[in-house]
Amino acid sequence: QLAELVVQFFQPKPQLLQGLTVTITAGPTREAIDPVRYISNHSSGKMGFALAQAAAELGAKVQLIAGPVSLPTPAGVQRIDVQSADQMHQAALELAVSSQIFIGCAAVADYKVAQVAAQKLKKTADDNLSLQLVKNPDIIAAVAALLQNRPFTVGFAAETQDVASYAKQKLQKKKLDLICANDVSVPGQGFNAEQNALTAYWADGEQPFALQDKSQLAEQLISLIYKRYSQ
Amino acid sequence: QLAELVVQFFQPKPQLLQGLTVTITAGPTREAIDPVRYISNHSSGKMGFALAQAAAELGAKVQLIAGPVSLPTPAGVQRIDVQSADQMHQAALELAVSSQIFIGCAAVADYKVAQVAAQKLKKTADDNLSLQLVKNPDIIAAVAALLQNRPFTVGFAAETQDVASYAKQKLQKKKLDLICANDVSVPGQGFNAEQNALTAYWADGEQPFALQDKSQLAEQLISLIYKRYSQ
Repeated sequence: QLAELVVQFFQPKPQLLQGLTVTITAGPTREAIDPVRYISNHSSGKMGFALAQAAAELGAKVQLIAGPVSLPTPAGVQRIDVQSADQMHQAALELAVSSQIFIGCAAVADYKVAQVAAQKLKKTADDNLSLQLVKNPDIIAAVAALLQNRPFTVGFAAETQDVASYAKQKLQKKKLDLICANDVSVPGQGFNAEQNALTAYWADGEQPFALQDKSQLAEQLISLIYKRYSQ
Repeated sequence: QLAELVVQFFQPKPQLLQGLTVTITAGPTREAIDPVRYISNHSSGKMGFALAQAAAELGAKVQLIAGPVSLPTPAGVQRIDVQSADQMHQAALELAVSSQIFIGCAAVADYKVAQVAAQKLKKTADDNLSLQLVKNPDIIAAVAALLQNRPFTVGFAAETQDVASYAKQKLQKKKLDLICANDVSVPGQGFNAEQNALTAYWADGEQPFALQDKSQLAEQLISLIYKRYSQ
């Protein structure tokens, strides 16, 4: 039995995704306020990087568009570093059209600062300040709306309440093929945690994934995504 | 000559700061917008951590109030981790009154969000959003304004233009004993760099420090601060 486990361990994984190109976005984006200040979020990039690693291990050509994170690039993965949502948007659309599968795992800022200051903003005498924000492009919706060379499009929904309901709305509204919903208000899962639990939804089905290491969860998710893609 | 250098290297540093307590703030602060989003800045904390290490090596009792950074705690330094300017403010005032020297090296957010949302904010149909900000407490000015047990107070000014002029204004207005001014618009120095160049200003003098490793610069700055404190 031990011998069997050892053989299993060293056996190359089945190259399920051989010949497929998978593009994945990961991490937060940073929206500049001025040369020193920015708006961002608590995404660590761990889930997206784990997905990139899992897809590469299954033989896919993986392009990983990463926001500012401090994570090593998984072996065999091509990494494109970006800062802002606008930069991620441009890289995503450019790479999506040559991909069979696109996974938008990044926590893209919904808004950016309307007018980025060229110099560091000085404190004013006024105690209040109003920061004007404008919407960022909706990257995953833009990919899903491609008319030509549209990849199988997978989104993520990180919510703090009504998780299932918001996720199903996003799936429909953004015309995604699959969405992974997780409740980031639960300590120990989601943002910056080593583990995650989530539920995948698609047009006529859903599948829950119990709390587990992100690397293990990533393998299961990639399997499900491949299964849905192939159907 | 080599023997001399070796002896020098292994010789314990003169314990100039023996018996003194030095409190240092370092890194950025994070101001929450909602449970997942925040406003921050590009401070890495490296300069403040280098100052803490230099002061500890010279025999001081060092209390390091650190914003969210990914740096190891220098040997012999007591570290207090905080996130927001309000938290840093509270820790700083608490520790300042039992310190002989206070160095405010943190890049404290000038503003925080007026009303932090308890749940993740949803995108609205509107393309524009106005984020209402209110001023954070001015930590270094509050320390310098202490009427009892006021430490020798050192501030930092990271500017992108008119560096000397802004720094001298801050020195006077906030009633600091010394201010270190650096131009963070120059690539390779200041925010997130390994090196830094700056000029220290006090009431009747100034001293420039050429571009060099932050650890080396920290040693020279601590020496100057001790000299000014002792006079």
